[in-house]
Amino acid sequence: MAFSEQELLSVVASVFQPDSSADILVGIGDDAAVVRGSSQQVITTDVAVENVHFDKRWSNAFDIGRKVTAANVADILAMGAKPEYLVVALSLVGDEGLERVRELAEGIKHEADKTGTRVVGGDIARATAISIAMTAIGSVKSAITRSGAQVGDGIYLSSLTGWSAAGLHMLKHDVEAIHAVHAMALNEFRAPSLDYGIDFSRAHSLTDTSDALLISCQSIAEASGVNLNIDPALIENAYEFKELSLLAQSLGVDVFEWILGGGEDHVFLATGNDLPGVRIGDVRQGAGVTGLEMKKAPQMWRHFQ
Amino acid sequence: MAFSEQELLSVVASVFQPDSSADILVGIGDDAAVVRGSSQQVITTDVAVENVHFDKRWSNAFDIGRKVTAANVADILAMGAKPEYLVVALSLVGDEGLERVRELAEGIKHEADKTGTRVVGGDIARATAISIAMTAIGSVKSAITRSGAQVGDGIYLSSLTGWSAAGLHMLKHDVEAIHAVHAMALNEFRAPSLDYGIDFSRAHSLTDTSDALLISCQSIAEASGVNLNIDPALIENAYEFKELSLLAQSLGVDVFEWILGGGEDHVFLATGNDLPGVRIGDVRQGAGVTGLEMKKAPQMWRHFQ
Repeated sequence: MAFSEQELLSVVASVFQPDSSADILVGIGDDAAVVRGSSQQVITTDVAVENVHFDKRWSNAFDIGRKVTAANVADILAMGAKPEYLVVALSLVGDEGLERVRELAEGIKHEADKTGTRVVGGDIARATAISIAMTAIGSVKSAITRSGAQVGDGIYLSSLTGWSAAGLHMLKHDVEAIHAVHAMALNEFRAPSLDYGIDFSRAHSLTDTSDALLISCQSIAEASGVNLNIDPALIENAYEFKELSLLAQSLGVDVFEWILGGGEDHVFLATGNDLPGVRIGDVRQGAGVTGLEMKKAPQMWRHFQ
Repeated sequence: MAFSEQELLSVVASVFQPDSSADILVGIGDDAAVVRGSSQQVITTDVAVENVHFDKRWSNAFDIGRKVTAANVADILAMGAKPEYLVVALSLVGDEGLERVRELAEGIKHEADKTGTRVVGGDIARATAISIAMTAIGSVKSAITRSGAQVGDGIYLSSLTGWSAAGLHMLKHDVEAIHAVHAMALNEFRAPSLDYGIDFSRAHSLTDTSDALLISCQSIAEASGVNLNIDPALIENAYEFKELSLLAQSLGVDVFEWILGGGEDHVFLATGNDLPGVRIGDVRQGAGVTGLEMKKAPQMWRHFQ
């Protein structure tokens, strides 16, 4: 090991400083944390593995910390809930260097701070590859699930999907970042900017698009027993569609592959009446997802990763 | 991959069947689980990595599932709390075979069932080594921390430590299991039987001994600002000490190395007045751990693992 466990713990502890918040009754350092709870708790866990979910060649430790945290927090927000606490189980190879571990912790804290979420515990293990397993816990009064979509609902995105896939494409194909649109795509891949500001509290159904927009639509259709009819013309009118479309064209890609099949955007997908964001279709009687027959079917096999 | 993600999820889902409990409002399958919470929630996370925390040569998948679950549940119990929910982030290599994954899940469920703890969510990822990250969540009215030890308290163990270390020693040295005592040691290493029955609810301070009894004593002494004086003669009077001592002797080991430095027992250590279990010493004014000067100091460097 390039460092002792003691050094490691003191670096991590200095980033996640003991919080004097009245909500944290026992913080890091005992057998478990004790926090103020609420009558309905929301729980989600997510693990990210080096060279599967992130790549040191493409992302620095700070961005990796941000990205993994965003993925967890997004799952809590996607229930219409308020994220409150995080615990982090970190597997390290041991050659990372303390500075990189500090950057990773700072990335986690940076993203968690955006929603007032506090890291209250963790574990560090030695392994043959870096991985970060995180559990986020939040509270909610009335959860918004995938099963509440009603016939007549509009279908809304908090923002246009596809930017993360565009960034990944650029990195895979060594595309140089010349224009602002290139930088945007790279940023969205490296550390997606979650749509924290969107108010989907009146939505009938809600999920995030981390696996891919098309999969998210299918999951709402299935869970709610309805048909989601997407109108590509509405997507084409979306804010930023033109920029993404020109970028796709310049790289010889069908932009709808990125938008429908890209994933990792953590954009929120909702159905309901008069919601904010981008309306992309409507909920009908029936099953599955329709309206995209004219679009090239993206490679949508849900990958085991 | 030897199996698709779909097959994998259906195996795991069949083990952690949807629970119709009124406490689980939204179970596995949405962005996050929604459960009934309480005013004080206890949260802990723990990650176990193949070839660091467990070894396929020495433990089958069922026992590995049990052992990792026991470690997490023990941390909740060590706060004087009731474990309620688990989420599991599982990293698989992909060559495990569905049957092994099912056994692992069954081991998790078997151990969780002992305390009525329910698996409410998870994630499965591909990795280059198997690892299991778990988060346990429980509820408590008034947590028992490491910092509550008072001068005059007795020091108690829920049962004698050292059996897991004895089992590990046997496996490392290819000791054949001939006598019942051999089988006991191996069982305790493979899937420690947590002392679920002990009532330490009146304890002033409480922790578990997963790192090693001596480390646990030191952590209570430090957190409470007291001295823990251990009396080896009391340990020698403990139930099962004679069996463990004879086993150690037959293998040429100092039994106190196992008892004080072994770890992985998940025995509970408490201080207080007239508690059940094995009394091993008393709390005095001062600092640190004393009384063991005549015993060989076990190799107690806390390993980064």
